[in-house]
Amino acid sequence: MQIRVYYEDTDTGGIVYHSNYINYCERARSEAFFLRGLSPELETGGFVAKKLEANFIKPAKLGDILEIKNRLIQMKSASFSLKQEIFREDIKIFELSITLAYVNHKGRPQKLGELSTLVKSLFDD
Amino acid sequence: MQIRVYYEDTDTGGIVYHSNYINYCERARSEAFFLRGLSPELETGGFVAKKLEANFIKPAKLGDILEIKNRLIQMKSASFSLKQEIFREDIKIFELSITLAYVNHKGRPQKLGELSTLVKSLFDD
Amino acid sequence: MQIRVYYEDTDTGGIVYHSNYINYCERARSEAFFLRGLSPELETGGFVAKKLEANFIKPAKLGDILEIKNRLIQMKSASFSLKQEIFREDIKIFELSITLAYVNHKGRPQKLGELSTLVKSLFDD
Amino acid sequence: MQIRVYYEDTDTGGIVYHSNYINYCERARSEAFFLRGLSPELETGGFVAKKLEANFIKPAKLGDILEIKNRLIQMKSASFSLKQEIFREDIKIFELSITLAYVNHKGRPQKLGELSTLVKSLFDD
Repeated sequence: MQIRVYYEDTDTGGIVYHSNYINYCERARSEAFFLRGLSPELETGGFVAKKLEANFIKPAKLGDILEIKNRLIQMKSASFSLKQEIFREDIKIFELSITLAYVNHKGRPQKLGELSTLVKSLFDD
Repeated sequence: MQIRVYYEDTDTGGIVYHSNYINYCERARSEAFFLRGLSPELETGGFVAKKLEANFIKPAKLGDILEIKNRLIQMKSASFSLKQEIFREDIKIFELSITLAYVNHKGRPQKLGELSTLVKSLFDD
Repeated sequence: MQIRVYYEDTDTGGIVYHSNYINYCERARSEAFFLRGLSPELETGGFVAKKLEANFIKPAKLGDILEIKNRLIQMKSASFSLKQEIFREDIKIFELSITLAYVNHKGRPQKLGELSTLVKSLFDD
Repeated sequence: MQIRVYYEDTDTGGIVYHSNYINYCERARSEAFFLRGLSPELETGGFVAKKLEANFIKPAKLGDILEIKNRLIQMKSASFSLKQEIFREDIKIFELSITLAYVNHKGRPQKLGELSTLVKSLFDD
């Protein structure tokens, strides 16, 4: 998935505001659903971030085109973890490890059950 | 209502990104509800922007403290209009005229009815 | 130009937060430069919003794909005005009229001069 | 430092969008400078995030008032690390460990030198 850096993504320091790389990764996760004709908002619930670790390697600037790669690193009964990396012309500029829990519409954790297969097929490549 | 300009509000041009002044005005409208112990998310529906007109007079920068003033300019049966102005040290830097429609949870317009009194009391000072 | 609606664009009302349509239009203006291998950050200055008028016709939701069209409506010596429209499957959901001034790095207005030709070629189709 | 949750902070899931807690922490770091009459944009450079770890404990909602606490956990010659916690009515809902590097205007790392004393006084309480 490719993302262009626009003005709204930058700050007065002249580079992309730090948390926007994390947003780009969220777009890439959602896009994995959209590309299959699905939505990350499921009838039975949705996914919420439980924890994340981010490494800021190099800054991106207005107009840059970034590429995001997702990789499944762990499946649990009610959550899963991804490694997501952002590249600019083959140079890695950011990496994120994120654990997402599956919750119902009241925010309570619930088992992925048969959703596990979907998650694997979306992110395990 | 006072607002501080943070990094996330600015862009690589060194000033506040244009639409963030519009966000500041939204905060000021919501805050009018919160200060009364109310929420702009009502049981029966909410308010959505129908149209707006904005004038960008002077730019704001990181660290600036801005003050926002709201004034009711028109009440209709299913919408109302506000004039909102942003000041920095008594100098007006931005003004917004905005019309907000009252809609139910499916997004259909509905009459303000007895809510009109509340709206007047929140914004007519 | 096509834009996908992601979580970050929506709010708790379940639809796109009002000012984000204005951001989408900014992306479309910047993209007009990027597609030519140019940047809206010019060596001699940049463009700032002076005034805008927005009409919110229908709401967009998570996962929607939106299309943005730009049209030049006025050229002045130090500013220009665009009409920008957002469509979802050929239905217009938002329209913006915006006036952008050309300013130097200190924020002072300056004449477009030979930039006028560029602006015309970017937006006059 | 207290922060109110506004519409722009939430998403269609009905809670605060995950990366906005990280933005709130950034506001709290900048505010530490502003409250002393200083700016985090120094004449000689600024601070950029190098890595962070975030734990999302409980979600926040529209209208919530959140409180942020900062604590210095490590000083190095060219960077420092903070623990930042967000509370809602004395219940911790989010925590962040973040390492910030001091860089010059070209983005090159540089020694904190005499800035160390300032950093300590801002965050070590």
